[in-house]
Amino acid sequence: MEGTDVALKDLTAEQFAELKTDIQGKYDELKSRNLKLNLTRGKPSSEQLDICTDLLSLPGENFIDKDGTDCRNYGNLVGLTSIREIWAEVLGVEVKNLIAADSSSLNIMFDLISWSYIWGNNDSEKPWKDEGQVKWICPVPGYDRHFTITEHFGFEMITVPMTPIGPDMDQVEELVKDPQVKGMWVVPMFGNPTGVTFDADTINRLVTMETAAPDFRVVWDNAYAIHTLDENFPEITDVVKLGGNRFWSMSSTSKITQAGAGVAFFNSSDENLTWYNSHALVRGIGPNKINQLAHAQFFGDAEGVKQVMRKHARSLAPKFAKVLEILESRLGEYGVAEWTKPTGGYFISLDVVPGTAKRVVELAKDAGIALTAAGASFPYGNDPENKNIRLAPSLPPVEELEIAMDGVATCVLLAALEQ
Amino acid sequence: MEGTDVALKDLTAEQFAELKTDIQGKYDELKSRNLKLNLTRGKPSSEQLDICTDLLSLPGENFIDKDGTDCRNYGNLVGLTSIREIWAEVLGVEVKNLIAADSSSLNIMFDLISWSYIWGNNDSEKPWKDEGQVKWICPVPGYDRHFTITEHFGFEMITVPMTPIGPDMDQVEELVKDPQVKGMWVVPMFGNPTGVTFDADTINRLVTMETAAPDFRVVWDNAYAIHTLDENFPEITDVVKLGGNRFWSMSSTSKITQAGAGVAFFNSSDENLTWYNSHALVRGIGPNKINQLAHAQFFGDAEGVKQVMRKHARSLAPKFAKVLEILESRLGEYGVAEWTKPTGGYFISLDVVPGTAKRVVELAKDAGIALTAAGASFPYGNDPENKNIRLAPSLPPVEELEIAMDGVATCVLLAALEQ
Repeated sequence: MEGTDVALKDLTAEQFAELKTDIQGKYDELKSRNLKLNLTRGKPSSEQLDICTDLLSLPGENFIDKDGTDCRNYGNLVGLTSIREIWAEVLGVEVKNLIAADSSSLNIMFDLISWSYIWGNNDSEKPWKDEGQVKWICPVPGYDRHFTITEHFGFEMITVPMTPIGPDMDQVEELVKDPQVKGMWVVPMFGNPTGVTFDADTINRLVTMETAAPDFRVVWDNAYAIHTLDENFPEITDVVKLGGNRFWSMSSTSKITQAGAGVAFFNSSDENLTWYNSHALVRGIGPNKINQLAHAQFFGDAEGVKQVMRKHARSLAPKFAKVLEILESRLGEYGVAEWTKPTGGYFISLDVVPGTAKRVVELAKDAGIALTAAGASFPYGNDPENKNIRLAPSLPPVEELEIAMDGVATCVLLAALEQ
Repeated sequence: MEGTDVALKDLTAEQFAELKTDIQGKYDELKSRNLKLNLTRGKPSSEQLDICTDLLSLPGENFIDKDGTDCRNYGNLVGLTSIREIWAEVLGVEVKNLIAADSSSLNIMFDLISWSYIWGNNDSEKPWKDEGQVKWICPVPGYDRHFTITEHFGFEMITVPMTPIGPDMDQVEELVKDPQVKGMWVVPMFGNPTGVTFDADTINRLVTMETAAPDFRVVWDNAYAIHTLDENFPEITDVVKLGGNRFWSMSSTSKITQAGAGVAFFNSSDENLTWYNSHALVRGIGPNKINQLAHAQFFGDAEGVKQVMRKHARSLAPKFAKVLEILESRLGEYGVAEWTKPTGGYFISLDVVPGTAKRVVELAKDAGIALTAAGASFPYGNDPENKNIRLAPSLPPVEELEIAMDGVATCVLLAALEQ
């Protein structure tokens, strides 16, 4: 988080009026440019997508996997061994505890909750639908699509604040004493939207804490585990090995190969996977093996995956640097905002003056700059302090990003001055 | 169905003993060959899979759809317009009423029932989980994976017999007077396993019958709509247009391009699709568009799809002819079996002497010929007459199929003689 030197509140009335005239002028000029820029979602850019174009011609005539499987025919509930082996090495987990699925890890998360709701999971005394009110821990700010799932099932979402080392574990340990608390969302590495990676103590407390519910689950959405911006790959903790049935761990190649057309993975304990497969086998025959084979051929091995990630880092790092540079140069001195400085992931979390986030997004929209809706990183879209904005720098080229972020800074200042 | 000339029951004791010695000898000889043949499931053969090998190099560098969509990035809940347009023409339905999904239509069926169970569908007064016993109509013999889904949700499955023109509609019309009857499985064209295509009167009665449940649904699994064996494509009725919200219609390219790696489609009314999408949007962002684009490029247009199907027909027709020829020559005279003579689809439904189907499958297994488990085409795997066996001729080459079917005929006769 970013401190400040000369805060807005310390300005004289004259200085304040002068600044407001200046910023209002900048905003009017911004509006007059009729921009159409978008910082809403964590989408890869065309430059990033070009990294994996060769994958789109695979597998070609090499449709037999190395274990002899003809990937063009039915069968194989848990996915191709070849892609599971590569990914298990990337994550540092056991192959037998890793399922390769279709393209969406979100699909897997939804199904895990849906099937626990209908039938209970392998540690449930009864289906979650037959519990009283199911409660769910939601570190905030967090990933909006997580919260949408638990809202859809009518779970009561209880927020705990994110800190620079993970969720506030004192609060989490207190909450899990309630047997109605059945689970928790986390993005443990380069998290959405804070960029925070959980430290060893946080992970240890999540592994060892006593929960009143025997069927409590942590949805360990490791979507950004290898999405470094500085080409340093942090160590990935094998929580499944440490945590028994507690962790449902997900990842995918959506932000590695093709967004929404990659391979998603589910890593969990033997018992959890047996339970999952008992339902997955009724839902269908198995995942798209052709797509999995293409990915295995394209990557070759775990090092091949890291090579791709280094290319992404080189594309993304200048964009993150540009956003941080503009935030610092435009807002640093006024004490009207704080922001995260991630070394990985897809987002920067910006906290503006409490009570002004919605106004900032509105001002930006009127100037042709689309930002993620204020509050989107909170359950029910409700940021109680109305201060958080998620910035997604990946999609636009640097030149556009620069224009957009300079505009956002103007909007942040103007909203602060209005208030 | 097949009649007979000289029935087993009309043989003299001497003739009977002579035949039994002969057949037992044939069976012993069969066993001594240590065969390993498989007629269990409706899998395409390698020869069929080779028809679409060119698809496996697509889309290559042409990853932009004709409407400008970069198929490598996120977005598009309902699937690519280009593949939806081609498939809508194949089915003769409106593009706006057709969703293109990932590879499995079974996944869609499961989700439709799951979401109706949890939240109710768009015509439900309450979620199906809050109903008393949900009941479901199952024409038999039918598709085992259908029955497994409704068994998994604890629905009471009520069987009605298939006739050569569709399910017994007198029984269906009677059953739907019960408000607990919420739906019905059907495979309306070249059905699994009978090969029957519903006639116009059957379809009309399904469209117009009064159901006590307002949220009653027919799962119209049109998996084999264009899977002709004689290159005649029967007319496909647009039941969605005729039937309002009653029909959930599914199809896929699993037995056209790659099995389990094609594109699945869901065709239904505007209201049904709005309801489906309201849940699908929470489960994920959208389907694999790269795979959809590859399919659109490979087919080109609806005629391209039919060209592929003609090639499949040329591969499959000799296999079906061989099975029918052996059944007729080996069993025709004895009155120990009846079988369907489909002009499309993937299966032949064989009825042996009541009480002997399990024994036939056991005898075949002991001789190294794997058949679908007796009873598999019935809910709970329970064929009350123990007479039905599903034959799947597609996978083995003709020479193997000939050996396998000759063996099966020996087993059918031996089981009949034992009884």
